[in-house]
Amino acid sequence: MYIKSIEIKDKRFNLSDGIGSDATHTTPQYAYAVCCLKTDTAETGIGLAFTLGAGTDLICKAIEYLSVDLVGREIEELMSDFGTVYSKMVDSPSLRWLGPHKGVIHLALAAIVNSCYDLWAKSRNVPLWKLLLDLSPEELVNTLDLSYLEDVFTREQAIALLRDNLSTRDMRKKVLSTGYKGYDTSVGWFNFSDEKIVENTKRAMDNGFTALKLKVGSNDPLRDIRRANLIRNTAGCNATIMVDANQKWNVTQALDICKRLGEINPFWIEEPTHPDDIIGHKTIARAIAPFKVATGEHIPNKIIFKNFFQAKAMDFCQVDTVRVGGISEFLTISLLSKSMGIPVVPHVGDMGQIHQHLVLFNHIGMNHEHLFLEHIPHLKQYFVNPAVIVDAHYQIPQVSGSSSDLKD
Amino acid sequence: MYIKSIEIKDKRFNLSDGIGSDATHTTPQYAYAVCCLKTDTAETGIGLAFTLGAGTDLICKAIEYLSVDLVGREIEELMSDFGTVYSKMVDSPSLRWLGPHKGVIHLALAAIVNSCYDLWAKSRNVPLWKLLLDLSPEELVNTLDLSYLEDVFTREQAIALLRDNLSTRDMRKKVLSTGYKGYDTSVGWFNFSDEKIVENTKRAMDNGFTALKLKVGSNDPLRDIRRANLIRNTAGCNATIMVDANQKWNVTQALDICKRLGEINPFWIEEPTHPDDIIGHKTIARAIAPFKVATGEHIPNKIIFKNFFQAKAMDFCQVDTVRVGGISEFLTISLLSKSMGIPVVPHVGDMGQIHQHLVLFNHIGMNHEHLFLEHIPHLKQYFVNPAVIVDAHYQIPQVSGSSSDLKD
Repeated sequence: MYIKSIEIKDKRFNLSDGIGSDATHTTPQYAYAVCCLKTDTAETGIGLAFTLGAGTDLICKAIEYLSVDLVGREIEELMSDFGTVYSKMVDSPSLRWLGPHKGVIHLALAAIVNSCYDLWAKSRNVPLWKLLLDLSPEELVNTLDLSYLEDVFTREQAIALLRDNLSTRDMRKKVLSTGYKGYDTSVGWFNFSDEKIVENTKRAMDNGFTALKLKVGSNDPLRDIRRANLIRNTAGCNATIMVDANQKWNVTQALDICKRLGEINPFWIEEPTHPDDIIGHKTIARAIAPFKVATGEHIPNKIIFKNFFQAKAMDFCQVDTVRVGGISEFLTISLLSKSMGIPVVPHVGDMGQIHQHLVLFNHIGMNHEHLFLEHIPHLKQYFVNPAVIVDAHYQIPQVSGSSSDLKD
Repeated sequence: MYIKSIEIKDKRFNLSDGIGSDATHTTPQYAYAVCCLKTDTAETGIGLAFTLGAGTDLICKAIEYLSVDLVGREIEELMSDFGTVYSKMVDSPSLRWLGPHKGVIHLALAAIVNSCYDLWAKSRNVPLWKLLLDLSPEELVNTLDLSYLEDVFTREQAIALLRDNLSTRDMRKKVLSTGYKGYDTSVGWFNFSDEKIVENTKRAMDNGFTALKLKVGSNDPLRDIRRANLIRNTAGCNATIMVDANQKWNVTQALDICKRLGEINPFWIEEPTHPDDIIGHKTIARAIAPFKVATGEHIPNKIIFKNFFQAKAMDFCQVDTVRVGGISEFLTISLLSKSMGIPVVPHVGDMGQIHQHLVLFNHIGMNHEHLFLEHIPHLKQYFVNPAVIVDAHYQIPQVSGSSSDLKD
């Protein structure tokens, strides 16, 4: 199967009634820069990068610049040494200046890389999670670029980590019959009224969810605290409740407000301050323990994740395959994360479509704990094969590819 | 003076014969995304963001998106509270997703912000350095956005730092008669032959330069060491020689090679590894002392600089006003840097045109040490008022504005 041409799409979806709103991103669309690898067959590889609408066209243009060398490549041959292909793209000598490894050009790389893995799985007629499980440790690591990690994590360690977990895979394959547990982010968007949050919480619990997220970061902390109590009182003391400030606070504010939010016993505080502030996160994590800090949706690459892990500045790693350099860098960061003892709970800019595959591989292949995967339902009608949630569990995808196809 | 419209230009300049090459950026152009603020007068505010050519159009498009609210604004009124204007642009709720505060959208912000200060200086008919010196501490700090720094540096501390250095300014105004010392980066580009490096070194010394830079980061470290010895032997033991790896090494390699480069007694090692690796830089700085670590040309914002300073991971701060959010964020980082005891020695993506003003203000207004400013001559013929170097010293610019005007 050969890549014949590349088509790029700018897909934006309007949201209504406060859906998707948070303290920082007040009026989002949900949007994808889409890389489509057309082949000599009926299959097309589809790769997504996620945005909030504005500027998606910049990523589309960058996809065009970064993907030129893929045309003419045979997919098995391409993926047999994809780490090299990846590193050529990510270190493109002049485009690299615009990052490196962050911002628009790195989002473009995400879409391109995701399209390659999608096509690979489609060409083998298996869902992405199965493709990854079918690869030998060496074959999988050949698709990664481990540069700049050598001081803490080498190619040999990556292969050993995968190999050491081969013999116990069967135990963890239980997840293929139970499905992967989900948590519900859509109960508590920032602009939702108190009444709507209560109503949504009840509906989520009725649908089997036991883990829910509330957006905080209000100008008036009392609003956050009132709403956090509301959701706790509605959901009961056994529910797992996460609060998410979406970077709104500076470190000083975060230290103050997080302590007061502690009274509702949150499972984690997400993005309590600026995503670049490693030392700030470390300070907050120390101060609010035993409450945990989660972050990662705005961390663009493996090097910054490495620093966060080294500094013990996050308790949960929320890497997102439509933010970092696609599935390749997602797997790199998941391996690194496992080796440094940090659980991966992805942020789902892809609405869980790709990540439902990736958490299965992380759990079965790397022995990452089966925690839960974020669930956001707002784009279901636009996907050809939307994720299926039954009793708050992601059902195991059976269609070939990475579930990224969008309806026309 | 009102901003009537905004014109955006994509200017790329070819380089020849290995000029501009380094271990990572092998075939650069030098290029600017240019933001032009047209007014109701003959004056135009010009702001630059620097790239290596590829993708400059992406920044131009982002300038268009980020700058819309500037049309119709009066320049004195705009700059009287520019910190608020800046924070509205930098935290634009949906475009922010593409960073935040890094990559293409932040480079676009650099061009926009630089154009506002340029127009402000032109409207007052003074060179930028004099505009900045003429502002009261409060007026200057009103042009800054100090958010996310409050845990280490507040608005009150910024004002106090400037105020405390008012009474001793006259002493430091000596620099206005001597000029600001330069150092020569163009002797040792990566692709230059050994012969050319020797010849350039001799010429630079003849022209009064006593500080020179060599590009290292070769696949074969012996090449780096040979060339470092060559330049040391040619320049003599009193010359100040900096070596610059342009991010080529991982931490393990850097530790090894930096020790071997120590034999030529370098003044600093620049970008020894990936610019995002704060802990890596800290490790290297500890290991190679008394040799110093310089970095910053790829650090996009104040928050990451804050972390570098907190971790004592750099000895010299090479912030670049055409990489961070323009002159506003440059000044913020310079204040923070001063308060945390780190000297600022800018990287000059602007070829020193804007930075020749900024180092004067940093020295006279903030009491930053008068070290030296990078000098790169390759775009001289394209600027309307190119920096003038006499006996290796930048002469004090007298024309109004920030010296950013490019010939048509």
